[in-house]
Amino acid sequence: MHPLDEAIAMQPVAPGMFAASTHPGYANAVGPFGGITAAQLLNAALLHEERLGEPVSQTVHFAAPIADGAFRIEARPVRTNRSTQHWLINAIQDDKLVAMATAVFAIRRPTWSGTDAKFPDAPAPESVAAMNWDKRPEFTHRYDLRYSDDSLPKTFTEPERENGASQLWVRDVPERPLDFPALASICDVFFPRVMIRRQRWSPIGTVTLTSYFHADSQTLGRVGSRHLLGVARAQAYRDGFFDQSAEVWSPEGELLATSHQMVYFKD
Amino acid sequence: MHPLDEAIAMQPVAPGMFAASTHPGYANAVGPFGGITAAQLLNAALLHEERLGEPVSQTVHFAAPIADGAFRIEARPVRTNRSTQHWLINAIQDDKLVAMATAVFAIRRPTWSGTDAKFPDAPAPESVAAMNWDKRPEFTHRYDLRYSDDSLPKTFTEPERENGASQLWVRDVPERPLDFPALASICDVFFPRVMIRRQRWSPIGTVTLTSYFHADSQTLGRVGSRHLLGVARAQAYRDGFFDQSAEVWSPEGELLATSHQMVYFKD
Repeated sequence: MHPLDEAIAMQPVAPGMFAASTHPGYANAVGPFGGITAAQLLNAALLHEERLGEPVSQTVHFAAPIADGAFRIEARPVRTNRSTQHWLINAIQDDKLVAMATAVFAIRRPTWSGTDAKFPDAPAPESVAAMNWDKRPEFTHRYDLRYSDDSLPKTFTEPERENGASQLWVRDVPERPLDFPALASICDVFFPRVMIRRQRWSPIGTVTLTSYFHADSQTLGRVGSRHLLGVARAQAYRDGFFDQSAEVWSPEGELLATSHQMVYFKD
Repeated sequence: MHPLDEAIAMQPVAPGMFAASTHPGYANAVGPFGGITAAQLLNAALLHEERLGEPVSQTVHFAAPIADGAFRIEARPVRTNRSTQHWLINAIQDDKLVAMATAVFAIRRPTWSGTDAKFPDAPAPESVAAMNWDKRPEFTHRYDLRYSDDSLPKTFTEPERENGASQLWVRDVPERPLDFPALASICDVFFPRVMIRRQRWSPIGTVTLTSYFHADSQTLGRVGSRHLLGVARAQAYRDGFFDQSAEVWSPEGELLATSHQMVYFKD
């Protein structure tokens, strides 16, 4: 069984209520990698018997660090319309809220479609070296991360950069066909912008993450287990918080997701 | 009393529960302007006696059209940490959920700060003509909207544009000092991207809106009632949904907010 599938597995204990657990393979410095929490919360809605259609958006609030071990997920469709459905999904540990998500699901129908964002130039993934640091959080070993620019700090003593943008190829390790939980997790895989901009270490923590899904499950199926191209940038760093906006592209240049987050940081 | 203050006024009826109402001055084609709903939901947290600090983010789900008249807002801090607080805010009408918001509030402390986004070139607001259509939704009369590019459709028969981007100066009508509810509302004031890109009319409706606030109330106070520069763009239009990302700048070039939304559209 793939570690991502182990991590997002959950046992139904009542309608809309699931027994879940952190997975040691997706541990971050403190608590689990936020992307895996997003994938778990989304999966609770995907597994729910009242689910309508497929995910269009997800917002996750990282309310508190999740301790290693078991927690409960409660997923509830709070409003179901003809073709859209709004969700509230809570993660509870020791009777306290540790994470909260909202989501929109929808039955999508073909319409005129277009893309304004530009698929960036990037060298082929095979020609880019994989990130290979000695000391890095466990979850990063679950991803093949190939930064195709020189944005990543090497010694954390490099001079400050002009901006916090970066570009990478990414896929699951081991390889795994793309689906919504995997994509939701990859939307949070980007190295913290403030550390790229400043090229120095900072304590950071995402407080809220919003991902928009522009692809349906058939499109994700066509991507399979190939690398995705991710680009991320910050807009503002101000008094302890910075934002990040990211795009996740298929190797053919289909925009699969756009994702935004607000991150706490310390000097 | 300013119409925005009338619109966001609410009566406490129990701890965290408020009696609110739609305001005819902020009516949209169907139901109220989404920005005013965002401002009302945010104001319920701002007025809550357990509030910690100031808004850092807000996500709004437009679950169903709100009918003209009264509704109830229930605001609850679902997790309060030392310096951050997570909120769930529901709008209930006829015992049904019509809108739902989450928010992060925080006590912000001075840190290293910077801006990666570039303040765009724009002609002075006084040199740009105000939008002046005969037929337009009532809420647009509550804003001075000065599109400084030729993005806005004039006859809805112009040729399709290369992208859905636009730029405008905006402020409340009548003038009103900027605060968080006013800023939350302005984050939703942008003309729908799909109509700019295609230069034709489409039925649309925002399903979810996320705004990140990069400024504190002192910074907003310094802006006062002057025009804000707004830029907005789409990234993808696909099978009935498109996204929008926007920046809201002070006239001096301070990035006050970034805002993202996912919008339903019909061909």
